[in-house]
Amino acid sequence: MTDVRTVGILSPGEMGAAIGGVLHQRGLDVVTCLAGRSSLTRLRAEEAGIRSVDGYDDVVQSADVVLSVLVPAEARSIADQVAASMARTGARPVFVECNAIAPQTVRAIEAVVHEAGGAFIDAGIIGNPPRHPDDGTRFYCSGPDTEAFETLAEYGLDVNVVGPEIGQASALKMVYAASTKGTTALWTELFVAARALGLEQALLDEFGPNHVLSQRQLASIPSMPRKSRRWVGEMEEIAATFEYVGLTPRILLGAADMYRFVGDTPLANQTSREADPPVEQILDVLTRTLAEDSKK
Amino acid sequence: MTDVRTVGILSPGEMGAAIGGVLHQRGLDVVTCLAGRSSLTRLRAEEAGIRSVDGYDDVVQSADVVLSVLVPAEARSIADQVAASMARTGARPVFVECNAIAPQTVRAIEAVVHEAGGAFIDAGIIGNPPRHPDDGTRFYCSGPDTEAFETLAEYGLDVNVVGPEIGQASALKMVYAASTKGTTALWTELFVAARALGLEQALLDEFGPNHVLSQRQLASIPSMPRKSRRWVGEMEEIAATFEYVGLTPRILLGAADMYRFVGDTPLANQTSREADPPVEQILDVLTRTLAEDSKK
Repeated sequence: MTDVRTVGILSPGEMGAAIGGVLHQRGLDVVTCLAGRSSLTRLRAEEAGIRSVDGYDDVVQSADVVLSVLVPAEARSIADQVAASMARTGARPVFVECNAIAPQTVRAIEAVVHEAGGAFIDAGIIGNPPRHPDDGTRFYCSGPDTEAFETLAEYGLDVNVVGPEIGQASALKMVYAASTKGTTALWTELFVAARALGLEQALLDEFGPNHVLSQRQLASIPSMPRKSRRWVGEMEEIAATFEYVGLTPRILLGAADMYRFVGDTPLANQTSREADPPVEQILDVLTRTLAEDSKK
Repeated sequence: MTDVRTVGILSPGEMGAAIGGVLHQRGLDVVTCLAGRSSLTRLRAEEAGIRSVDGYDDVVQSADVVLSVLVPAEARSIADQVAASMARTGARPVFVECNAIAPQTVRAIEAVVHEAGGAFIDAGIIGNPPRHPDDGTRFYCSGPDTEAFETLAEYGLDVNVVGPEIGQASALKMVYAASTKGTTALWTELFVAARALGLEQALLDEFGPNHVLSQRQLASIPSMPRKSRRWVGEMEEIAATFEYVGLTPRILLGAADMYRFVGDTPLANQTSREADPPVEQILDVLTRTLAEDSKK
């Protein structure tokens, strides 16, 4: 196994900080760069035991492995900056691309890292930020040499190898996220439409009291608004993945529309799992927003 | 209750013939016009005990109630023809719009029927064609006066009143169909994408053996290809319904794309429930079609 002592995490958002916290608890040195990040991100990093260094040059010089964990839209720019730091400093940590992005986007980023002389592993994260051991977050990886990432299994991550090609781990994340977040987008839309049309109760009556799918989908709505803004880009990446294999991108572009719609409401300002509003309140706000938008 | 002795059905396709069969078995006189219809439609009508008359003029003159049961794309044209026959003959049966169309489309059709002096009821059918009593097909209706349609509950239909407005019954059908056929479109797409990317087994492993949603969605795929062509228009009507209330039409337009894609394969030529192919075969054909399309 590769000797890994220090892991760089860019950036310690909710997911990144949770991963850093697990690795730190298990004895690894975890570093990040907090320049330009919010005070919430700083607080999260501190609580997780993540050590802050001055810049990306310091991150690549300290770390054996750098994990890129961000919103999809920032994945390319972080890779560019890390590659520039590698070129500038001569340091060559293994770059692990963990973001929810299309396989063809991953391969474009791989080219940038290779150009700078760095080794590259594709990864996809399925599940919630691993704040508790029973959260069961799965870390999938793929590529010709995934050993450096597999080593992190010794430090508390549930690591699974998907295959030898860059793009496979991300593609698995894409199709899986389509099944969860895509379905939630569709069902949120149809429940909002039913309410806007005065048919919510009639629809619930048609489903009946033992309808598993509608109950699960209603239960998935409360935690969605606080994630909706970052899901917009993720839905667009899934759309690009589907288009890449020759399938329609429109279902997932519509899912992006739904999360953009939710993200534009104050519901999306809420950040804590504990303060998730009830589904009734969410549907109510969304339906009223539609009515207000139609008056503009 | 309105005295109903004769019901016109336009047209006796799979759903229309099944409804006509139930009403005929319960003692109603059921008529249709088969001009320009296929030999399969003729055979279905005959088996259901539906009496064929020469033209639409005869249908409106014979029937107390006319049910419009067609693919969405033909709904407007049939209403135009029935309205013309009403104007020509002076006969005024109650027109019941049973098609899977957007509420605003229903109201446009209502205007045509009113113009010809006919009474109008909105209806939406949820479930399979009622070939057996335990098929549990539900008939929803709405409008200021739905009595003529409610009378059919005495002749074997499960009739439910949604509300006093034209458009409500159709809208209920739209949001319900979004939940079933919209979800099937999304899951078919993601399973085809997973297979095209060589990740189908990895995805199934991630779901695990007790994952209710994936198992139900896989089970919904075998009966879909033979319905896919008529679902294209239905998805477009749901998209129009969502757009009408201010929500994105793109999820459902993408669902229409998926059913167009399936409908363009030989899988859609199959017509019998008993001959539905296994899901493996369907995903295989769809994935190979993608690969062939990409070579063009």
